[in-house]
Amino acid sequence: MRCRICKKEAVIKVRSFGIALCEEHLVEFCLKRVKEAIKRYQMLKKEEPVLVAISGGKDSFVLWDILDRLGYKTTGLFINLGIKSHSEKALEKVEKFANERALPLEIVDLKEAYGFTIDDVKRKETRTVCAACGMIKRYIMNNFAYSKGFPVLATGHNLNDEVATLLSNVLSWKGGYLARQGPVLPAEGRFVRKIKPLCELTERETAAYAILTGIDFFEERCPYSKGATSIIYKRALNLIEYHSPGTKIRFYREFVKRAKELFKRQEEELKECPNCGYPTTHPPCAFCRLRERMTA
Amino acid sequence: MRCRICKKEAVIKVRSFGIALCEEHLVEFCLKRVKEAIKRYQMLKKEEPVLVAISGGKDSFVLWDILDRLGYKTTGLFINLGIKSHSEKALEKVEKFANERALPLEIVDLKEAYGFTIDDVKRKETRTVCAACGMIKRYIMNNFAYSKGFPVLATGHNLNDEVATLLSNVLSWKGGYLARQGPVLPAEGRFVRKIKPLCELTERETAAYAILTGIDFFEERCPYSKGATSIIYKRALNLIEYHSPGTKIRFYREFVKRAKELFKRQEEELKECPNCGYPTTHPPCAFCRLRERMTA
Repeated sequence: MRCRICKKEAVIKVRSFGIALCEEHLVEFCLKRVKEAIKRYQMLKKEEPVLVAISGGKDSFVLWDILDRLGYKTTGLFINLGIKSHSEKALEKVEKFANERALPLEIVDLKEAYGFTIDDVKRKETRTVCAACGMIKRYIMNNFAYSKGFPVLATGHNLNDEVATLLSNVLSWKGGYLARQGPVLPAEGRFVRKIKPLCELTERETAAYAILTGIDFFEERCPYSKGATSIIYKRALNLIEYHSPGTKIRFYREFVKRAKELFKRQEEELKECPNCGYPTTHPPCAFCRLRERMTA
Repeated sequence: MRCRICKKEAVIKVRSFGIALCEEHLVEFCLKRVKEAIKRYQMLKKEEPVLVAISGGKDSFVLWDILDRLGYKTTGLFINLGIKSHSEKALEKVEKFANERALPLEIVDLKEAYGFTIDDVKRKETRTVCAACGMIKRYIMNNFAYSKGFPVLATGHNLNDEVATLLSNVLSWKGGYLARQGPVLPAEGRFVRKIKPLCELTERETAAYAILTGIDFFEERCPYSKGATSIIYKRALNLIEYHSPGTKIRFYREFVKRAKELFKRQEEELKECPNCGYPTTHPPCAFCRLRERMTA
């Protein structure tokens, strides 16, 4: 297997494009894909300070690395969720990554800032902790960006994440969610703009990028993530992609281009949380309700 | 495993309902599901003569059997597609089924009526024969029903068929197809009403029904069907259903109830084929174009 561009020994076959690439050109390919996605979906301008959500996992580091290489003004944000042993180890990797590159890093400690941890949620709540954790992270990331004057928040969702969520929302025809899914969610009131610059790179490609560029990422999976349904959607989509390469990117692009707007009128109106001001469909917002239960 | 209803030994677990059923109550369950689907989607009235598309496979026989048991005025239609050895064997099973039950059967021979066979299509055309065969069957079934005064045409599509097609159309966001998919396609000009009374029964349930009621169906798969992409979609959906029972029926019902209408405005206008009068988006119709190529 030879690199399509330089004919050197290839390290990866990019199936959706039907091409093989060497180490150097895979890195170039990923940079180009992110650059093109930013342009296609009008995500970000060079002069805008962008807050980058950093978990310590490969996708968040690849995102930060690429945005920095492309010359954007990045600041990392790590949220210490207080998951025993897991969160501390993730934080170590994140601090090392930021220090090595002299990139600015901000840290929010869930316990210090809001008085509870994800371990507390796991212990006290009956519903699945993953949904609550996702909601908490979105809340904190947005509030941090908004209050510190970052107009844009970037997250490391890759194509596999995006199409798994899309499929999940389609299987239940969740019109309101579909209306708000995509590579860019525009700013609205206290919501800063949310962008997903890796949305056209597959998980395999971001993993290859991380390994080939020597990124020292945190490999341990969250102890609470076992049995997450998103894994099943990813497997189902991988099966289809294997037989029809290009299905995922078409599913995503055509959704954004033609279908997303159809669901706009199923969107629920956003109101303001009387407690914290966060936009929500059902005040008080889900974060304030959870925090109330956790700290009562 | 005991039957939920009578506590006798169960023969099948209906996973989407979380119940086990014995032979007698599985049959009753299927009849009830079809009856309810006909009512829910307002498919058919008792006094309307219904043309039932019969291939000889289990789903078409189950459909015919159930509609007859429920007291509908059914006539079977078998199309001899001229697939060597396969079509003749299917016809034998169909004639036996109709004779045993004294049900009226009509036969259209593709070669006699239109001058070519599916074997000819396979030999002469480069594109996949399955797509052409589907188009030919839809054309002939509709024209037969229309010209013989049947207001309704019933086909044996089960839930697995329906959700596989739905997923396929969603993955490409084919708005025009999505606008026309569902359990009922209303009459329009020379299009008679099309209905799918088995749309809420899974393939596993129709297979169990066929076996338990002793239906002698044609088990041989079409020699041209290997590698059909619909099989991959079915496998992907089975994977999801296995982990989240009830996903398929929810996907289908919510689509019909809430999402289908959103795609209406993406539908292309139907025109009339100048040659045969059949409704088509791009005249002359696909059947006349193919027939021209086949018989030139």
